Amino acid sequence: MQSIDQIRKILAERLAHGYFLSNPPTLYQPIEYIMSIGGKRLRPILVLVASEMYGKPASEVLDVAIGIEVFHNFTLLHDDIMDSAPLRRGKETVHVKWDVNTAILSGDTMMVMAYDLIMNNNHQNLHEILRTFNQAAREVCEGQQFDMDFEKKLDVTLEEYMEMIRLKTSVLIAASLKIGALCAGAPKQDLDLLYHFGEKIGLAFQLKDDLLDVYGDTKTFGKETGNDIITNKKTYLLVKCLADSSANPEDRHLLLQWLHEHHKPQEKIKVIKTLYQKYGIEHQTNKAIETLYHQGLEFLRKSSLDEAQKAPLYEITDFLKARIS
Amino acid sequence: MQSIDQIRKILAERLAHGYFLSNPPTLYQPIEYIMSIGGKRLRPILVLVASEMYGKPASEVLDVAIGIEVFHNFTLLHDDIMDSAPLRRGKETVHVKWDVNTAILSGDTMMVMAYDLIMNNNHQNLHEILRTFNQAAREVCEGQQFDMDFEKKLDVTLEEYMEMIRLKTSVLIAASLKIGALCAGAPKQDLDLLYHFGEKIGLAFQLKDDLLDVYGDTKTFGKETGNDIITNKKTYLLVKCLADSSANPEDRHLLLQWLHEHHKPQEKIKVIKTLYQKYGIEHQTNKAIETLYHQGLEFLRKSSLDEAQKAPLYEITDFLKARIS
Repeated sequence: MQSIDQIRKILAERLAHGYFLSNPPTLYQPIEYIMSIGGKRLRPILVLVASEMYGKPASEVLDVAIGIEVFHNFTLLHDDIMDSAPLRRGKETVHVKWDVNTAILSGDTMMVMAYDLIMNNNHQNLHEILRTFNQAAREVCEGQQFDMDFEKKLDVTLEEYMEMIRLKTSVLIAASLKIGALCAGAPKQDLDLLYHFGEKIGLAFQLKDDLLDVYGDTKTFGKETGNDIITNKKTYLLVKCLADSSANPEDRHLLLQWLHEHHKPQEKIKVIKTLYQKYGIEHQTNKAIETLYHQGLEFLRKSSLDEAQKAPLYEITDFLKARIS
Repeated sequence: MQSIDQIRKILAERLAHGYFLSNPPTLYQPIEYIMSIGGKRLRPILVLVASEMYGKPASEVLDVAIGIEVFHNFTLLHDDIMDSAPLRRGKETVHVKWDVNTAILSGDTMMVMAYDLIMNNNHQNLHEILRTFNQAAREVCEGQQFDMDFEKKLDVTLEEYMEMIRLKTSVLIAASLKIGALCAGAPKQDLDLLYHFGEKIGLAFQLKDDLLDVYGDTKTFGKETGNDIITNKKTYLLVKCLADSSANPEDRHLLLQWLHEHHKPQEKIKVIKTLYQKYGIEHQTNKAIETLYHQGLEFLRKSSLDEAQKAPLYEITDFLKARIS
């Protein structure tokens, strides 16, 4: 079995300069651009690792892995339009560098490319691979819609929030693992266990994102912290704080008052962080993350492989747990 | 074999109220809306007719047909955003009735639904069905990009124009026929013949659209004519007129002058129609349409079925030829 570094290298080589260029260039250059500005490549690595774990070399499922990454980047591209985001990974977003129409259409094309790439594997599980991918793709769209719906709601419950991030973030991570394992013909029971493991670490991944946006180190985090607070984004922290402070009319009032304040960003961050502090939100979020990793690893442990064969997934879990950006 | 009217009825029944509704409603209501405001249902009818021709009942490939129609409507939904179109089939477009973000995301979801529906058929040709669909879907995106690129060009050749509409319009019509035939296990040679037949009638279909926009009867056409002229849309008529008048500096100058005129729409229509008249553009377009139908029918004739079995496709061709809206 290859190391994660080796797998990452194989992936980077395949994605090297020009992989996505085609005709008309006005359609494919933005695709090459967004695919080249990097990211963690978490999802394709999970596909490749899962496949290798069950005996199929990464090189044989590379297109499937890249298909998942293309789909993921398509969702980022369209999300950035919807959020009017100027930057992605420190670079101009496609709808800024080109325009909204180009971003819509290049994104649409990426979705088709994703299917094309995922179909580039010749074995009997194609139908289930596509079903798994379809379901995840559909749920990612639903998650994004719930996220947008939540912008207009203050009474989002923690359950609703967790379900939203499960759809928007977790299911694709879970599906990546399941699809990799399907490519290698893993036993049915393991498919579900890997999926549930992925679901849990995906949830933990998103809660960590929520935390980093408030408490991350600006230098290592790569962008200013507090942005979620300024934009009233429904995060685990805010939803939890809204719930926990609901019995205290004074704090509740203060929180709502600042949620309606759009002109004093730095003061807003300070006040809301004080409330987070009072209700121990950082600590509680860290506890929730711990629990999710624990639950995830329980699923992984139950799978049929030797512990040694699962090593890369433990390694990825440790990496995600420790990440500061 | 069922009649086209029967097939149309089966389709309408399946698409009856509420077929696309799901959770969150904010995501699925726009999908239900655009799917319910009608259209000719040409593509799904072609899927079903082709399948019946080769012995597989329409009822068994209904989801595949609906998948193609969902994909087609997804492209309309996103095209309407890109064109800032206020109306579609006389009704408010989704991005107007809801908003751009909803239109983007509902469209994305429709693309996934299309794959899901197309996969709802249990036979051995799934891989080729999906490949055929993928290629068409990709080409539709490329065609739309060429169309947008052409907005900024005056030197579009007739060949470039025909290739653009082949991608944007024809390939999905061609793929509908091929996919229907694939569902029924038609012989390989017939698949290609049906595809080429579809390609030709698809091109003729678009040229007819171009003609109707200038010479259609406002009442039966359902909207004001001359819109393509006002917006400088590259149509067969305009591209042909630009080519044919190029040797006459005076006419060329007049045409270009009016293409740069944006404030006198009625006069613009009148002048450009006079030039079309002078160069016999209406007649030449009609001749091109005739030729395309002729070429298409040649492909159809070569297919292995009895002429009687091909009757529904002759019927559809006659209908398309005669259409006035």
